[in-house]
Amino acid sequence: MARILVESAPEGVELTHIFNRKVARKRVDWIPGSVTWTEDADSLLSSAPGAPDVIVELAGGLVPAGDWVRKAIEAGKSVVTANKKLIAYQGLDLEAQASAKGCHLLYGAAVAGGIPVIPGLEHGLAGDRVERVEGILNGTCNFILSKMEAGAEYDDVLKEAQGMGYAEADPTEDVAGYDARAKLAILIRLALRAQVHPEEIEACPITDVKAIDFSYARDLNCTIRQIARAQFVQDGIGNSTAGQLSATVRPMLVPLSSPLAWSRGTENMVVTTGYYGGDVVFSGHGAGGNPTAVAVVSDLVGLAQGSCRIAIPSQPAKVGTELEVPHYIRFLVNDRPGIVAGIAGALARENINLNAILQKPGFPLDRLPFVVTVEPCRTSALKRALKEIAQLPALLEKPLDLQML
Amino acid sequence: MARILVESAPEGVELTHIFNRKVARKRVDWIPGSVTWTEDADSLLSSAPGAPDVIVELAGGLVPAGDWVRKAIEAGKSVVTANKKLIAYQGLDLEAQASAKGCHLLYGAAVAGGIPVIPGLEHGLAGDRVERVEGILNGTCNFILSKMEAGAEYDDVLKEAQGMGYAEADPTEDVAGYDARAKLAILIRLALRAQVHPEEIEACPITDVKAIDFSYARDLNCTIRQIARAQFVQDGIGNSTAGQLSATVRPMLVPLSSPLAWSRGTENMVVTTGYYGGDVVFSGHGAGGNPTAVAVVSDLVGLAQGSCRIAIPSQPAKVGTELEVPHYIRFLVNDRPGIVAGIAGALARENINLNAILQKPGFPLDRLPFVVTVEPCRTSALKRALKEIAQLPALLEKPLDLQML
Repeated sequence: MARILVESAPEGVELTHIFNRKVARKRVDWIPGSVTWTEDADSLLSSAPGAPDVIVELAGGLVPAGDWVRKAIEAGKSVVTANKKLIAYQGLDLEAQASAKGCHLLYGAAVAGGIPVIPGLEHGLAGDRVERVEGILNGTCNFILSKMEAGAEYDDVLKEAQGMGYAEADPTEDVAGYDARAKLAILIRLALRAQVHPEEIEACPITDVKAIDFSYARDLNCTIRQIARAQFVQDGIGNSTAGQLSATVRPMLVPLSSPLAWSRGTENMVVTTGYYGGDVVFSGHGAGGNPTAVAVVSDLVGLAQGSCRIAIPSQPAKVGTELEVPHYIRFLVNDRPGIVAGIAGALARENINLNAILQKPGFPLDRLPFVVTVEPCRTSALKRALKEIAQLPALLEKPLDLQML
Repeated sequence: MARILVESAPEGVELTHIFNRKVARKRVDWIPGSVTWTEDADSLLSSAPGAPDVIVELAGGLVPAGDWVRKAIEAGKSVVTANKKLIAYQGLDLEAQASAKGCHLLYGAAVAGGIPVIPGLEHGLAGDRVERVEGILNGTCNFILSKMEAGAEYDDVLKEAQGMGYAEADPTEDVAGYDARAKLAILIRLALRAQVHPEEIEACPITDVKAIDFSYARDLNCTIRQIARAQFVQDGIGNSTAGQLSATVRPMLVPLSSPLAWSRGTENMVVTTGYYGGDVVFSGHGAGGNPTAVAVVSDLVGLAQGSCRIAIPSQPAKVGTELEVPHYIRFLVNDRPGIVAGIAGALARENINLNAILQKPGFPLDRLPFVVTVEPCRTSALKRALKEIAQLPALLEKPLDLQML
């Protein structure tokens, strides 16, 4: 971020201070001498003479970053942040606080880094009524799953991702879907204009997906991606129900023909579906220092030019997981007569139509993976059927249930 | 546009007047009675009491739309327009005029309709240094070429497109590349920050592409699309040369793995390449009433909220066609000995390396199509070689020369 400011020197934007812990060790020689390095956050966040007009917060997390942002706004400073967690959990309050103080809170970098999804929603799609938003919002999961698509196993790819700096030593935040969930909560507010708490959004980890699932997915002309998805619940005749959302972050089967199947490596992608304008796709490099920096500097340029955010009104909404979609269910069984009958019976009792049964040759009969696909059915009905199926003694592990996009 | 305003009633935006010729025949019953229908443009463009604050111009073309827009700005009104031609030819002057009058000129709908490319460039990529922009900017050509990819011939698809309202009775503006060229000129100003006159951009028609070319393209793992492309000319060591652009609109071979090959039907797509943030892809429905209306209403919402455009500085630039890229060249010949030798010799004299010679079976020897691909070479060198090749008596028509993306 500092490098772009130094190299490009956008009009009206001047880097004045850098706050960091252990400044002595972090100082670099390409930063101009006019810039003050400091370990004292309070002096920057005050309204004292010489303190900066705008604070860029790149620390992440709720504490202490949230306190810094609140203090800055309290002192009448505008804030630019890449902090998705802070915006997902407290963005509404912080925006109200900034608005009351006559300053601005900009966070174009908080979702999909260098891809202008947030500016696109605020400035380009404000005239539409977005009814659904789907996306690949976590580069770590996309790196892992697109490598698994090419034949690798989860544990090996995770190690590779950690070695390349794409995954943390503890990858939970990414692979469990918590990171994507925070970003989805922000998109829900800006695109669907609904206020939801991130933790109300169901998150399922990608850790149960195995190489064999990519092989079966391929047979179904699909691949597997971590998809964040939110849409209004439809009533019986296909109209959106205001204030009722279905939202989830989970690995899903994605048709190879869908744009969401095209993203490779750490790329991010967002697809919005508008009532008037139809589908719009945004994709590119979602994370990493440079793409994030582009979004931060773009927000700074906007502030310097006196552009303000479009205030998108939003309403509180209830979040559920109920959705009527087809599913892929992979079982691992100790093969014996009656398994398919048991599964088919449980599905039939919930009025769920079986679509296909796929079984690849070459596996031992006592650890046999096979796949059932079912036609669109309610999430809750399938959950009940799977609970019954879980009682079958032949099952060696919990079936892997993936929604099909 | 009026329908979205009536249905959605965005805060701060009120439809007050509709100007049209022959109002009596165009009146519709879903427009509220409070809206004034008029055939008198001058009354709307004046600063008289009761005249509107903002003018939406959807007439298109330079005359009389340009005069209306100038009059409105002169009266201190902000203008929202979808008029790519007006913005491409006179946008810089109109913006200066608006700025002097303290009002705004917004044209989010002028390029790629419902896809927020212009807001994305202005608000999300202002912090990057965009070095290249490529896109599919004309839905009519994309409809025709993606249908030809599926096996149809040009004349048949054109008729189909005309029947569906996707192409004009005289399709020249679209198929010759003039429409895409105007849009490219706007993108050059906003993305590359360079001022060019649209007519300086080379435009080659798609009309010489035949079904056989899609067949050969497929063998090369490519398809064919009308691509608008602009980038800074690179010096010998790969740095961009300020003020020197290469820009063109022409049918090109596009690898099937490129996002640009994914767009079907009337879809549009823009890919920007930033020095810091890398590639960003925008895609969706570029044209049609509703997507265009979304962009127009979004601009109106922005105006109502007091958001202003980010003024992106731009510099005059020289436009050329010189570029070092591989080419696909399809010949139609009356087969006889020495043809390949003649072609290869002409290429060799310009130091152009032949890459492959492809010849599909099943064609009569006296009307034999075959294809030569060459390694990256300067546009001017290939032009000279093709001029020499054109003298070969076996050639039945001018070779089709397509750049390979």
